[in-house]
Amino acid sequence: MKDFPGTPGTLTGFVLRISQCIFAIGSIASMATTASFFKYTAFCYLVASMCLQVTWSLVLALLDAYALVKKKVLHNTASVSLFVVGDWITATLSLGAASASAGILVLYFSDLGNCSFEQACLKYQISVTLAFLSWISILISSLIMLWLLAAA
Amino acid sequence: MKDFPGTPGTLTGFVLRISQCIFAIGSIASMATTASFFKYTAFCYLVASMCLQVTWSLVLALLDAYALVKKKVLHNTASVSLFVVGDWITATLSLGAASASAGILVLYFSDLGNCSFEQACLKYQISVTLAFLSWISILISSLIMLWLLAAA
Repeated sequence: MKDFPGTPGTLTGFVLRISQCIFAIGSIASMATTASFFKYTAFCYLVASMCLQVTWSLVLALLDAYALVKKKVLHNTASVSLFVVGDWITATLSLGAASASAGILVLYFSDLGNCSFEQACLKYQISVTLAFLSWISILISSLIMLWLLAAA
Repeated sequence: MKDFPGTPGTLTGFVLRISQCIFAIGSIASMATTASFFKYTAFCYLVASMCLQVTWSLVLALLDAYALVKKKVLHNTASVSLFVVGDWITATLSLGAASASAGILVLYFSDLGNCSFEQACLKYQISVTLAFLSWISILISSLIMLWLLAAA
């Protein structure tokens, strides 16, 4: 398999995984510190999806770190196939959750004219923005993984 | 480039494009026949995204039909690259729009306990379901295109 930036076991790959974790943790923290997020299915779904994202990205970050330290190569077809499937599932769930939450925020802020949750409004916005940033970084990883597998 | 079902100029590819068009047209029709969809940003975004989907898929369906009739091969790197970019943009926009609309529907049906739009409620649900079906078929096309390009 080819070796290019972002593939498993490279520094770029590791940085991508860590950024996915940071954005997802930020999104969860911002949402979970509001008093009423659990009343909204889309916001609960966002938290659940970001938890899955953190778990997945953390495991792969640790794997990347191990490969970097031990100078091992993780490019065998079986493991890359697993990474591709996991990346695509988490990326799709993250985009779906971020979009559903964004849809509700736009409904309250724009369509209904105001956000009546007071302090929580800003936190919801920050959470959704971080979820989109997390999705962008997992999307980059997913495309690299699929490319790596197809080019094998 | 390899030739497998779903690639440009094959019957499977043509069927996929036509199914994308049909689902997207159904979604637009169901949404546009409600009296109040334009009051909701997410629903307007869904209609706009499905219009883009219909345009893109129709152009590629015509191209596939032309290639099938004339027995031409459309597998050159430049055109497949263009298909990949277009497919990924439309797929992402479709998923985002469908999820945002679904988020609002879940808010009304589940979180707030009832849907007060009367007859329009069912039409909104049908529209969002068809948008997700359209997204599934464009996702299949997108994955095939990326695979084809990477395997070149």
